[in-house]
Amino acid sequence: MEISNRIRGFQASPIRRLSPYARAAKERGVKVYHLNIGQPDIRSPKEAIDAIHTYPNEIIAYGESDGDLALREAVVRYYKDSVGVDLELDDILITTGGSEAILFSLMALCDPGDEVIVPEPYYTNVHSFARMANVSIVPVTSLLDDNFALPPLSMIEERITSKTRAIILNSPNNPTGHIYSPKELETILRMCADHDIFLIVDEVYREFCYDGKTFTSVLKYDDYAERVICIDSVSKRFSMCGARVGVLISRNRNVIRETLKLSQARLCSPTVEQYAALAAFNAPVQYLLDVKAEYEKRRDFIVKALQSIPGVRCSRPDGAFYLIAKLPVEDAEDFAIFMLRDFDYNGETVMMAPAEGFYESKDLGRDQVRIAYVLNTEDLGKACACLREGLKAYKAKRRF
Amino acid sequence: MEISNRIRGFQASPIRRLSPYARAAKERGVKVYHLNIGQPDIRSPKEAIDAIHTYPNEIIAYGESDGDLALREAVVRYYKDSVGVDLELDDILITTGGSEAILFSLMALCDPGDEVIVPEPYYTNVHSFARMANVSIVPVTSLLDDNFALPPLSMIEERITSKTRAIILNSPNNPTGHIYSPKELETILRMCADHDIFLIVDEVYREFCYDGKTFTSVLKYDDYAERVICIDSVSKRFSMCGARVGVLISRNRNVIRETLKLSQARLCSPTVEQYAALAAFNAPVQYLLDVKAEYEKRRDFIVKALQSIPGVRCSRPDGAFYLIAKLPVEDAEDFAIFMLRDFDYNGETVMMAPAEGFYESKDLGRDQVRIAYVLNTEDLGKACACLREGLKAYKAKRRF
Repeated sequence: MEISNRIRGFQASPIRRLSPYARAAKERGVKVYHLNIGQPDIRSPKEAIDAIHTYPNEIIAYGESDGDLALREAVVRYYKDSVGVDLELDDILITTGGSEAILFSLMALCDPGDEVIVPEPYYTNVHSFARMANVSIVPVTSLLDDNFALPPLSMIEERITSKTRAIILNSPNNPTGHIYSPKELETILRMCADHDIFLIVDEVYREFCYDGKTFTSVLKYDDYAERVICIDSVSKRFSMCGARVGVLISRNRNVIRETLKLSQARLCSPTVEQYAALAAFNAPVQYLLDVKAEYEKRRDFIVKALQSIPGVRCSRPDGAFYLIAKLPVEDAEDFAIFMLRDFDYNGETVMMAPAEGFYESKDLGRDQVRIAYVLNTEDLGKACACLREGLKAYKAKRRF
Repeated sequence: MEISNRIRGFQASPIRRLSPYARAAKERGVKVYHLNIGQPDIRSPKEAIDAIHTYPNEIIAYGESDGDLALREAVVRYYKDSVGVDLELDDILITTGGSEAILFSLMALCDPGDEVIVPEPYYTNVHSFARMANVSIVPVTSLLDDNFALPPLSMIEERITSKTRAIILNSPNNPTGHIYSPKELETILRMCADHDIFLIVDEVYREFCYDGKTFTSVLKYDDYAERVICIDSVSKRFSMCGARVGVLISRNRNVIRETLKLSQARLCSPTVEQYAALAAFNAPVQYLLDVKAEYEKRRDFIVKALQSIPGVRCSRPDGAFYLIAKLPVEDAEDFAIFMLRDFDYNGETVMMAPAEGFYESKDLGRDQVRIAYVLNTEDLGKACACLREGLKAYKAKRRF
């Protein structure tokens, strides 16, 4: 009476794995700054909350499997106005979070034993979704010393085998902040065409590009439209992570039509939260501009704060709201646990995600953590103070 | 650039597959009575709607992966008070609908190529979840002539192979209305123990048992607790199908601990709707008693109405709110499409789910439909009138 090999022995998400230690810390009365998860402290659009407060129906009924029609129309309008891409309604499936869009993409393209190529460090939950679908992740390593730029294309190309079904990118990248340039995208698309594989691009952070950098969506490349799946979500854009409303976009009608069967199996995405998401898409654009400015301020703040801590090095993210920091420790997970279990600084501590789980290759990232700069600068400052003092205390403890 | 074998060529859910015809009918101005899907016209508890209208947070944030703590506590209380089962918090994972609980159960227990045994006709979406997990459904056929009683246990036992990982039951049953007796449950549990396999029981309709029949939960059998997974949901109990809040219950801590990794990958179930579900669990018990009385009235009504239509035969369901009806047609799907595409009776028609997709065995159920008696008796009466007249018109058309 054993559980499946599918889930046995795979590590729980490093974003969530240390949660029991955080709970215990809180029970001890220690305040925990959560830099482990991309849960912003930024308010959801007022329009979305108002929509919830005025939800007009007396029955929380099933919606359509492909998503609420008005929401899909709002998504089409958003892509036209904000991304500069003309979509049709039939290019879009509303999913239960971007998470489900990734899982459905893997299931739609891959059979058990198939492979997908992913630049690492990468969004760790893709690993779990691949496990669920019995798909292998084939990593191509990008380096902190290169500010996590895309590895040479030859390195990617040599990983393509007869089992490769897709390359998965995330731009702007979680956890590195890298934004794929139009040239990088076009070169990868050409490579996908040469090898007749798909390109999946998770663009949920596209609104958050800093230093005046512009974002180019993979959906802009009409010549490759048939081999592209784009992942989107309201979670980060509108600070509605708990709504579980995502979008799977493809102009490959076969992909949409067949993936719809997966949507139909689970009947629909949450009804009330789709109604809130519709309101969020209709909120004034100023909301997003303000949020972006806030994240850019936080990015500037935390990079400076981290670089001032002896022994800490970090990437300077161009977008999204994460970074990878190298710590002066051997085992960042052990240190992260120490911070929650054994340490506080004036009754406060910080939770970070050990970065090892963001790498597929063994033994990479062991001295790194992923930091989500989702708190206001005052809290980020206190969190960095905890990190600085925690590193001292950890070092002192290790001496004994 | 092909899609996966996993999803290629598998039929879309018969519950949803004819939706395009229904949309077209509505566009022609025809009113469609939806008996195809278990979407009741019954109001969600006022307490749940009130909770949505007073949702207290300004950020729709990620919740815990195993579900909102207050909601899990309410589930424990409900099981103690209403089901007579003592659960611990750690026996419970909140899932994104009962759908996700079924998918997670299959993934947690089965590797690709493994088998699960299911009495047919069965809840058709289990087929899709099995496809997603690359698991094979091995059917044991139950018969309309037996009012869909459980087939002899010897028939089930002879289907067990070295690849069998679980038996899946749904009680009260969708689509047949059968309720598994304590004796049936205990015999099946003993068989599962003999062969060291799991028993998964979907009990989402447990509140709806008629003619004074009582329901026995699989969770009552302490001796077999380690090999049981119970599926639950607020969708039907509280007429909150669109909330996508379900529950996976097991006292096998290994199952819960490992399945939590799947939960962590998708981060959380919808936050606002969990808040509404909590309010629903705290609503007065009278809500459920009223709903049950209403469904029993509908059951009585529709069985009588269907049996009065020449050539129609149907099962008399003991519970849930579905039945299988045999129609005097060769191809029930063709007839169901005819009803939506080519027919109306005083500007109205009825949508039903072709039953073939509720069978795993080839060529069974071709002349059957599944009917969800989720509308009030007045609408059910009109829907049955459409069916009666539709059968005449279909027969007349076939003569030409």
